[in-house]
Amino acid sequence: MSVNPNASIEITAFKQVPDFAQGLVRDLRVRWALEEAGLDYRVRLLGTPRPTDYVQEQPFDQVPCFSDGQVRIFESGAIVQYVGEQNQALLPREIQARYRAIQWTYAALNSVEPAILNVFAVTTFHADQEWAKLRRPSAEEFARLKLKRVSDWLGEKQWLEGDSFTIGDLIMVTVLRFLNHTNMVAEFPNLAAYQKRGESRPAFQRALSAQFAGFAANQPEPEEAAA
Amino acid sequence: MSVNPNASIEITAFKQVPDFAQGLVRDLRVRWALEEAGLDYRVRLLGTPRPTDYVQEQPFDQVPCFSDGQVRIFESGAIVQYVGEQNQALLPREIQARYRAIQWTYAALNSVEPAILNVFAVTTFHADQEWAKLRRPSAEEFARLKLKRVSDWLGEKQWLEGDSFTIGDLIMVTVLRFLNHTNMVAEFPNLAAYQKRGESRPAFQRALSAQFAGFAANQPEPEEAAA
Repeated sequence: MSVNPNASIEITAFKQVPDFAQGLVRDLRVRWALEEAGLDYRVRLLGTPRPTDYVQEQPFDQVPCFSDGQVRIFESGAIVQYVGEQNQALLPREIQARYRAIQWTYAALNSVEPAILNVFAVTTFHADQEWAKLRRPSAEEFARLKLKRVSDWLGEKQWLEGDSFTIGDLIMVTVLRFLNHTNMVAEFPNLAAYQKRGESRPAFQRALSAQFAGFAANQPEPEEAAA
Repeated sequence: MSVNPNASIEITAFKQVPDFAQGLVRDLRVRWALEEAGLDYRVRLLGTPRPTDYVQEQPFDQVPCFSDGQVRIFESGAIVQYVGEQNQALLPREIQARYRAIQWTYAALNSVEPAILNVFAVTTFHADQEWAKLRRPSAEEFARLKLKRVSDWLGEKQWLEGDSFTIGDLIMVTVLRFLNHTNMVAEFPNLAAYQKRGESRPAFQRALSAQFAGFAANQPEPEEAAA
């Protein structure tokens, strides 16, 4: 339910990231799942550069890692699924409902996110590069197709599989957020409303606040920022 | 263990794909998992264009879909995980081992595949476009970093988590195959050996043969091919 230095669950997060990445870093997903499940967690913050042995925990040198005394895992999709096991609403026990939720988790991360991150890349990281300017229209077109597919599926439903919010929705909403600096999601009103519905959940709001609070508490010193 | 028109498990696959995609289409993953688990399956082949109502089964209009009378799901990662549930070797029951396998499934699909598919895109689909020529060096550099991360993690181990082949390895090997038209995996000898180890498994060989047999049995008519 909140960040608690004595919690048995530990996640890793970055001490600081550029402004455009705040509210997007993937520990947000795990914080949100934990808030939905009503589980306290503590945060181990990683500075720059990361400790050299961190890759033994997280081979891609990314966040989040997760440990709770029972498992030690990385990769936000896997962690959210694990946390979901502890909450029947997030990840139903009944086998068909269970795998529909898991299927959407994979779909968000593999059928939607890569297209969206390619737009993110050409409009942020690489925006000033010639290839990115040339690439942008086709990257947007492909991402728009993916959004349309999700929008068409969603229709008038509240969540991807109907009335219950699951881990699949949790991941999908965080994926859509990578387009927050564009108007692309707004082109699909039902999808924009879906994203807003997810972000309006109290658990999401607490997770987002906690991620921002971490960055605020770890502002670089003026001389460090100028370096 | 083989394609059987009377099997209760059904997957969807494409009747035909361009040469460069043969041996890569994602039903290969599910065929492989089913072969590892010793489960027969039947194949519903989809022509071009796909039936318009197929998106009600698979919102992204892709393959594979999976049904077995108990669940109806799409997204290869989710299907492979579901099939893994039926085989303790592929997806161990013990919680830590279980989530290490699931974590690598997500890692292959979300931390590795997008970088590799960006290389695939600039060297196949978009190879003749100006942006792709300009983009290629940085796309390769990023994919190479991901390969290095996996290679460093793998070290001298046989599989990603040691001596047992799991769904995480199954998906990772199929992801590496998207670089078969390059020499990039060969730059990391332990990773190349790992891919080969996966592809040498009899279950993989049967799955690959079955995918190719489907294409061979559905050659376009000469006039159709010329159209």
